Amino acid sequence: MKALPLVTLTTDFGLRDTFVGEMKGAALDIAPELTFVDLTHEVPPHDVRAGAALLGRGYAAFPPGTIHVAVVDPGVGTARRGIVVRTARHFFVAPDNGLLTRVLQRDPPQCAHVLVEPHLRRESVSSTFEGRDVFAPAAAWLARGTRPEDFGPAAGEPVLLSLGETRLDPARESPTRVLLVDRFGNVTLDVTREALGPFAHSGRLRVRTAGGTVSTLHRTYGDAAGPDPFMLFDSAGYLELAVREGRADRALGLAVGDRVWLRVGG
Amino acid sequence: MKALPLVTLTTDFGLRDTFVGEMKGAALDIAPELTFVDLTHEVPPHDVRAGAALLGRGYAAFPPGTIHVAVVDPGVGTARRGIVVRTARHFFVAPDNGLLTRVLQRDPPQCAHVLVEPHLRRESVSSTFEGRDVFAPAAAWLARGTRPEDFGPAAGEPVLLSLGETRLDPARESPTRVLLVDRFGNVTLDVTREALGPFAHSGRLRVRTAGGTVSTLHRTYGDAAGPDPFMLFDSAGYLELAVREGRADRALGLAVGDRVWLRVGG
Amino acid sequence: MKALPLVTLTTDFGLRDTFVGEMKGAALDIAPELTFVDLTHEVPPHDVRAGAALLGRGYAAFPPGTIHVAVVDPGVGTARRGIVVRTARHFFVAPDNGLLTRVLQRDPPQCAHVLVEPHLRRESVSSTFEGRDVFAPAAAWLARGTRPEDFGPAAGEPVLLSLGETRLDPARESPTRVLLVDRFGNVTLDVTREALGPFAHSGRLRVRTAGGTVSTLHRTYGDAAGPDPFMLFDSAGYLELAVREGRADRALGLAVGDRVWLRVGG
Repeated sequence: MKALPLVTLTTDFGLRDTFVGEMKGAALDIAPELTFVDLTHEVPPHDVRAGAALLGRGYAAFPPGTIHVAVVDPGVGTARRGIVVRTARHFFVAPDNGLLTRVLQRDPPQCAHVLVEPHLRRESVSSTFEGRDVFAPAAAWLARGTRPEDFGPAAGEPVLLSLGETRLDPARESPTRVLLVDRFGNVTLDVTREALGPFAHSGRLRVRTAGGTVSTLHRTYGDAAGPDPFMLFDSAGYLELAVREGRADRALGLAVGDRVWLRVGG
Repeated sequence: MKALPLVTLTTDFGLRDTFVGEMKGAALDIAPELTFVDLTHEVPPHDVRAGAALLGRGYAAFPPGTIHVAVVDPGVGTARRGIVVRTARHFFVAPDNGLLTRVLQRDPPQCAHVLVEPHLRRESVSSTFEGRDVFAPAAAWLARGTRPEDFGPAAGEPVLLSLGETRLDPARESPTRVLLVDRFGNVTLDVTREALGPFAHSGRLRVRTAGGTVSTLHRTYGDAAGPDPFMLFDSAGYLELAVREGRADRALGLAVGDRVWLRVGG
Repeated sequence: MKALPLVTLTTDFGLRDTFVGEMKGAALDIAPELTFVDLTHEVPPHDVRAGAALLGRGYAAFPPGTIHVAVVDPGVGTARRGIVVRTARHFFVAPDNGLLTRVLQRDPPQCAHVLVEPHLRRESVSSTFEGRDVFAPAAAWLARGTRPEDFGPAAGEPVLLSLGETRLDPARESPTRVLLVDRFGNVTLDVTREALGPFAHSGRLRVRTAGGTVSTLHRTYGDAAGPDPFMLFDSAGYLELAVREGRADRALGLAVGDRVWLRVGG
């Protein structure tokens, strides 16, 4: 079984326009045997923070050697840099604007280089579409064996956003925030099972929201008996608020970015 | 020409989140040479009946040996079973909740097995995302040649929904129902050309709806002269209500699940 | 590195239904090793003009030999013809209804043939879904080496829409029109950098809209300082109206098809 180079894409380009297709065309022009997987193209426009959360949610399921391209790039065409980063298992290609924050918090970079080498870009680079002209070609060259250091000088520390995951202080209420709301209305909070340590499954964890306090933890959606919101740990290890076959976001009046409070007991 | 293993996906996961991408990543981790085709990810959330209709509409165009994965799964993580089913031409991997109803009505199962073998799942199975951790890996192992019986014990009869296609009684009005409304506003009814037998093209078929009675049958959209709704048989053999370059759902006030009545003559 | 045959798809089928998946299944049944790239499936229903603009925007990034399938086809099943067209670099498969206008304005056809040969279609051709039964199979056969002339007789001149790009008359205001509005609210006008000649970068170009006159030209989004609309040339060479991290369509009250006026100086 031959391992084809695998490239994932995470962008705010949507699927209405031809941008995503053009990125793929530009990469296939360099490496015709690539396999693409779309992680999502529905990052809210220009929302680097949401892009970082979605990429951080989705990248881990992929095999070693996968090349992840992420483009949410309000600074396209300006002095902000493009970078390629290698971690223990994967490669990442993105603007250096914090989009890799979640990834690099979990998988420290082994090396990071700036994308400046002209012959590893498209011949004529548009000032508004580096996804097609810089980032997609970089992924294709990586897939063909080009090394990160061939793209340009060492990048130093990539930009990180203040997306520190919540730590729980059992002595008081700890604020956290809604990281994502998925298609089903499930509400992902910015706190992981690990961060909650012994309190995760203590039966004493509570989440206070503007719309009410949630105090039941279930293992899965089907374990809930009625229409009341409950907590569970999602498939990436984050604390989630959910309603069985319903929408927790509506039941609790929550949207991305909203603040909620964690506490132990009471 | 080498026949690569082909895997289709039908889910209610949408394209906003990273769920579909994660399923593909998990499968490619096992079988890197897979080719995926998305049938749809826009099944209305938790709507097993709509999922069954869409899968039943879309699966038949694929070549022999195709592996169809379908996940609309309100019972994820509970005691409901996952199954693999082999028919004369295809394989199906899905929760055993009726999602395969349409398929199995047309293509009787040759064998059905429960997905329990631990080494054919991901190492750690999330209680909320068996699409990634159970169903996608099962498809990848099937593509690599694992046999249905290797996944677990025989499943007996898969669950079937009461989605029996309408039979026409020429002596009276026969109730049927709106199965699907497509992007163009075309309204698919739960009745096939076969079920209508000699009345299909008799010129005497009528469909009564809350918004009016339709009595003209055309061969294709372009054969209609004006803005009046008409009948035709769609590309899967179902009776459809349509308006030329317009929306039949709006013209007739119809939505998925609505009841309409068939009759002969009058 | 083996060059797999590459097929792009541009349709108005959307992603909610199974139409696009069925097209791919039908093609893979003929040529299992195909690679598909979706350009877009969100062309507004039946809008051939918008389809022509989107295809014209997106096709150029693909490698030589790419096969582009486009289906926006209000006349499906009627006497309108299906055609295959070869240009210097690419192949195109589409209904002959003007959908290739933009492409053929830039890349003159080297040959065009009608899709009539029965053994290069699916065995049973539905009167409502030639995307699956005629166009996708044609692409698959092309990928396998079938020549355009094998599909049927020479087609003569393909149908062209009156989508002539605006030429600028510096002596007076020249009307043009909104060609596309992308996901970010950027407004593409139907005029290219080439058509503007020496006035493109003269600093004297103005765009008058119902919502105000735009007189600043930037190189990229990030070069704009404030919330005022500005012009730039997009990655396909078209004149675009944009707002930094905002929506130009809302700022200027513009939608696809709206008329705007170009002038020089003043």
